[in-house]
Amino acid sequence: MNCKTEATTASQLLSPQNVRDLFDSVDAFLFDCDGVIWKGDKLIDGVPQTLEMLRSKGKKLMFVTNNSTKSRRQYAKKFHSLGIAVSEDEIFSSSFAAAMFLKVNDFPREKKVYVIGEDGILEELELAGFTGLGGTEDGKKTAQLKPDTLFEHDKSVGAVVVGLDQYINYYKLQYGTLCIRENPGCLFIATNRDAVGHMTELQEWPGAGCMVAAIRGSTQKEPIVVGKPSTFLMDFLLQKFHITTSKMCMVGDRLDTDILFGQSAGCRTLLVLSGVTTQSTLQDPSNHVCPEYYTSKVSDILEFLGP
Amino acid sequence: MNCKTEATTASQLLSPQNVRDLFDSVDAFLFDCDGVIWKGDKLIDGVPQTLEMLRSKGKKLMFVTNNSTKSRRQYAKKFHSLGIAVSEDEIFSSSFAAAMFLKVNDFPREKKVYVIGEDGILEELELAGFTGLGGTEDGKKTAQLKPDTLFEHDKSVGAVVVGLDQYINYYKLQYGTLCIRENPGCLFIATNRDAVGHMTELQEWPGAGCMVAAIRGSTQKEPIVVGKPSTFLMDFLLQKFHITTSKMCMVGDRLDTDILFGQSAGCRTLLVLSGVTTQSTLQDPSNHVCPEYYTSKVSDILEFLGP
Repeated sequence: MNCKTEATTASQLLSPQNVRDLFDSVDAFLFDCDGVIWKGDKLIDGVPQTLEMLRSKGKKLMFVTNNSTKSRRQYAKKFHSLGIAVSEDEIFSSSFAAAMFLKVNDFPREKKVYVIGEDGILEELELAGFTGLGGTEDGKKTAQLKPDTLFEHDKSVGAVVVGLDQYINYYKLQYGTLCIRENPGCLFIATNRDAVGHMTELQEWPGAGCMVAAIRGSTQKEPIVVGKPSTFLMDFLLQKFHITTSKMCMVGDRLDTDILFGQSAGCRTLLVLSGVTTQSTLQDPSNHVCPEYYTSKVSDILEFLGP
Repeated sequence: MNCKTEATTASQLLSPQNVRDLFDSVDAFLFDCDGVIWKGDKLIDGVPQTLEMLRSKGKKLMFVTNNSTKSRRQYAKKFHSLGIAVSEDEIFSSSFAAAMFLKVNDFPREKKVYVIGEDGILEELELAGFTGLGGTEDGKKTAQLKPDTLFEHDKSVGAVVVGLDQYINYYKLQYGTLCIRENPGCLFIATNRDAVGHMTELQEWPGAGCMVAAIRGSTQKEPIVVGKPSTFLMDFLLQKFHITTSKMCMVGDRLDTDILFGQSAGCRTLLVLSGVTTQSTLQDPSNHVCPEYYTSKVSDILEFLGP
């Protein structure tokens, strides 16, 4: 299989000729955020105008992000600060997904959740009625290998949620490892496994995949992944928007998360080259994830449709 | 295969009846350290007397440890502080292995080595004539995701060595990731991949396998492993001691590192249950690494041989 040459699987370059067919057959556009809407705190050119046009034509918009550092509320705030009106319930973040996973699986309220990650996860846990601990607060703690000191952990932790954590340290790694190895039945939940991401405009940084791999390395357990490419969040999108997945188009910059998520859920797919994936990665023979369409950036939709 | 039941692969419990056969056919005993000689900073019962007896009977002793936090010099010092006379050249640590790997592969002297790990690696690199950076010093640095700041890294880094690092942080993860992803031909060397280890007497802690997995997660590259179970160090042991491997017995507490290392090198093998492996793990049907002998602790050799 090859996204460049095989007629049956080839990805089409989006163009003024084929954009109308995609546009007319889709009722909702699902956007990834990092590398699609923005890079770090900077909007990608033409995004606001494109989203505005899509809304004006009656398309539903949803934002599905693997970045777990923010809650839905914090994402809505970020959109507003960038001049884009998006409501909380149009946002589906992996921090929300982690909390919803516990909720739909009847995670006992009396159990606690240890977080290797940032505030977004803790806020979503609290909103869902769960008790989180760890997170940013434990970023200041140290765990040194001193003789005769026992590293204590809370035996009532029933789940460890691991996401992107710029305050990762040995204390948290030991805490999470002890919970998973020693608390009977303790769940190991990964918000996502992105290797790297455009956390800042200028470069890529280790993503949640780095922290998740660390805990997988120390516990030798496989995580439950709730973010993309897992389609766990799709049930929530469908409940909210009542649109069949074949009428949705997933727009993202990552093959192994966004495009795989869209394809697994039965959505149309559009890869944008404004984030982590280059055209040569897409067309490399080793790549087996072929989006239906690809283009340089989101605003090409606006440009190709014309006035 | 099963270490308990299959006659051809079954591991024998060491006993007064079979210890003599092993003892007489072996000229050198190779010991792992953590979980075999000591736990954290505490000697395991009977170790000094057993080592003394082995030496008095003309057996050569070597210590092969995956713990990279110390150099050979620092290990010799630790042995001495615990009342055991061991010379530097009887010690083969994964910190030494990392430096020797670069040496035998003619790593250019003008290139630098970034270290995610502790002082032992930096000291061995320096002794071998290489320039290391990172390590403990970078444990105090922070890398926060601020817009418009570019995280700079040294383009002359040609290898990243990853070992156990109790000062792991996002700064080091980003630094190592950038070197491996952006410096052409940059090597990714793992001292070892132990999931956990008895870094303190009272409990296990995440091992180098945790940090190595993190960098594997962010770079999506496979490391070159120089510690056990890789037999890379065996050439150095053979050069030093001129003993055929079939006359050596590897004594260790880990199936996936010590026993696999011994078996891969053609050594006799003895598992001790004083460290990470329990008898039920050894005899679990999912375990496929069966040592020739197993016993509770090193001093059983002394006890079973009798006066």
